[in-house]
Parts: sequence; structure tokens; C-alpha cells
Amino acid sequence: MAEKPWTLDDAQDAVDQWITQWEEGYWDPLCNLARLTEEVGELAREINQTHGEKPAAGPDKPARIADELGDILFVTITLANSLDIDLEKALRATLHKYGIRDRDRFTPRS
Amino acid sequence: MAEKPWTLDDAQDAVDQWITQWEEGYWDPLCNLARLTEEVGELAREINQTHGEKPAAGPDKPARIADELGDILFVTITLANSLDIDLEKALRATLHKYGIRDRDRFTPRS
Amino acid sequence: MAEKPWTLDDAQDAVDQWITQWEEGYWDPLCNLARLTEEVGELAREINQTHGEKPAAGPDKPARIADELGDILFVTITLANSLDIDLEKALRATLHKYGIRDRDRFTPRS
Amino acid sequence: MAEKPWTLDDAQDAVDQWITQWEEGYWDPLCNLARLTEEVGELAREINQTHGEKPAAGPDKPARIADELGDILFVTITLANSLDIDLEKALRATLHKYGIRDRDRFTPRS
Repeated sequence: MAEKPWTLDDAQDAVDQWITQWEEGYWDPLCNLARLTEEVGELAREINQTHGEKPAAGPDKPARIADELGDILFVTITLANSLDIDLEKALRATLHKYGIRDRDRFTPRS
Repeated sequence: MAEKPWTLDDAQDAVDQWITQWEEGYWDPLCNLARLTEEVGELAREINQTHGEKPAAGPDKPARIADELGDILFVTITLANSLDIDLEKALRATLHKYGIRDRDRFTPRS
Repeated sequence: MAEKPWTLDDAQDAVDQWITQWEEGYWDPLCNLARLTEEVGELAREINQTHGEKPAAGPDKPARIADELGDILFVTITLANSLDIDLEKALRATLHKYGIRDRDRFTPRS
Repeated sequence: MAEKPWTLDDAQDAVDQWITQWEEGYWDPLCNLARLTEEVGELAREINQTHGEKPAAGPDKPARIADELGDILFVTITLANSLDIDLEKALRATLHKYGIRDRDRFTPRS
């Protein structure tokens, strides 16, 4: 990839530029949530076909887990943008929380 | 935030460092998917309480949508890492796909 | 419908007869959960197109919410069967729990 | 259980009686969908703790998969009621569809 690597902020900007070019703009949070549910469902189908017991039916294309993760990231960013949420800050907060909460839950590598 | 902004690649590295410090390491894709389903469910509760008709019950804390989005991003990155998927590439592919597929689906701003 | 109405138990039996005719039999709970996630995602798409802001794209058929609810009920029953869970008992327990927990959360009709 | 077994229709009636006793009545489909997403997320947590790799954290109660399936059935019925959908008919349609679609997808028991 010759392009300059995206920061999380750049990714939020890129999605914002894409969405604000349309009259429709950002959706209501409940509609974006439904969209996220839909995309997680598509990921579930791909993972079940690749790593689970669900046999691929005739018309299904080969597993496209990367595509589905791209779609999920897109909707997650869309929801964050529509509510003025900084995703890097949110991710750092999650890592900080796990650092505290999971300290005794897993086994450190020796 | 005085820290250097994270690229998507930095974010994938940060999660990798957190996970690989434990003996347990990465989970199976089906378990990570279940974890993602759980986190999206927690987001759904917060959004319903803030933007929907679900009244907040007694013991619930005030809406923490940003926290839930941080958790969802964390699990999305975890799944991507465990399957060697480059999330920036996946997000760029999604934006490219939408640029083509949705060209006639929305109304351009005049 | 001329057929005798199904009890919840009959419904669990009908699904059991369908599944046990195949060598594959019941799946692992994590795979059935992924299947449920997939079906809820399809319901989300239909509801968003009918009641939300998501415009129907070209190749999508008209909303089929009833079909998706049938699929969700099927997977819910499958999961219950695979774990020897009595769904009527579970539903009665839910109603009993709500009767206690939500007593002061909503407004009784006068 | 000494009580008369519920048909699917009885179950839809029981949920209707519970909901229509409140001024708030039925929610919008998008809110019920968010509620379903929340309940499926709680089931995912229980299944991951019982059948997956997620270790139970301190404050979590022992797995309660039956409870979560009861909650999912309750919300599924609520959604169906709010849209005048007959769940027995929907489930029969799903079984009929699978009978046709999956005819060559699995291996019949010999």
C-alpha cells in the first residue's frame, strides 16, 4: 500500500467524507445499530462456513471474512461519528479497563 | 491526548501486545464471534436506553455508548489479528465497494 | 390452517424430527449461536428497510419479516433441543421474572 | 407442569396480555430488534463461558442458557405480535423451506 497509513482519526474522517456527500447524511443510532447487527450476522455466516459446522450452500461465495470485518469497522466508525465519539480514545479506554479487570483472569506467559 | 495518534496498524499492534502477554493467546474465531455478539448486545442496550423506548432499569448506569464502541473495536481487531487480516486494507475495500454499489442509492448534496 | 395447532413441545419435536433425519445431527452450541446471529442479522436488514432509514438496494426482495422470525424461532428451538431445554418452561420463567422486575418500570393502564 | 401445555398461539396471547396491561404497549420494531440483539448478546456470553474459551469473570453467575433462551423467545414473540405475525405459520414455512433447500446439503441417516 503506497498510501500514507491511516490513523484512527483519518479513518473517521474518510467515513465522514463519504457519508456527508449525501443528502441523507447520518442515520439515527437505532438504524445504525440495526446495520451493525446485519453486518455481524454476515460475519457469523462466513465464520460458521469456514470454522464451524455449517456447510456452504450452493449459491454462497467463498468465505470473505476480511470483507465483513471491513464492513463492521465501517459501521462502527459511522456510529461513532454520528455521536461525536473519538474511537482511539474509546479503544485506549478499553485496553486500560482490561488491564485492570483481567489482571487475574488469564495466565501470564513465563 | 499528548500521545502520538495511532494508525490502524498501531491499534492492531497494541491489541496483539495485550493478548500475546497471556498463555491463553488468541481464541478460536467462533469464540471471538460470540464475544463480538455479546459486545454488540451491550451497545444495543445502551442505545435503546438513550435513543429508544427502553426505560433505564434501576441498577443500570448512565449510557456508556463510547465504552461499548471501544469494546466492539477491540474484539473486531482481535478477530482480525487472529486471522492475519489488515483492517486498514479491509476498510479501504469497503469504502471502495460502497463507492461503486451505492452510487445511485443516495442523493448527492447539491 | 386445518392442521392441529402446535404446542411449544410439538414445535420442539418437529424441529427434532427434521434435524435427526440427518447424519450431521445437532451442531455445537457455538455454531448454533453463530447461526442465530446470522438470522438476527437478516431480520435487522428487513426491519431497517421497512421501518428504518436504510433504502432497499436493487437486488433485495420486499421485506420478509415473518420469514426471518420463523428462521429465528427455528434456530432458538434447535439450540434448546441440543441442550435439553424446555422452551415453554423457559418462557414461563421469563414472564414470571418480568412480572416481578418490571412492576414499577412501566405505567399500568387505568 | 400441571398447567395445560401452551400452543404457540397461547404463548403469543400470554405475551400480549403482559404487554397490553401497560400504557407503553408495544415498542417500535427497531427498539424490539435492539432488545433482541441485547438478549442474543447475553446468550452469547453464557454459551462462551460454558462451551467456549471465555473464562467466567468474578461477578458472573453460573451459566443460565435456559433463562436467556426464554428471554429471546419472549422478544421474538413480542416482535411478531407487534407486526401481526403468526409464529406457528412462520415456523412451518421455515421447515417447509428447509425441506426443499437443504435436501442435498446434509447426509440422510441410513
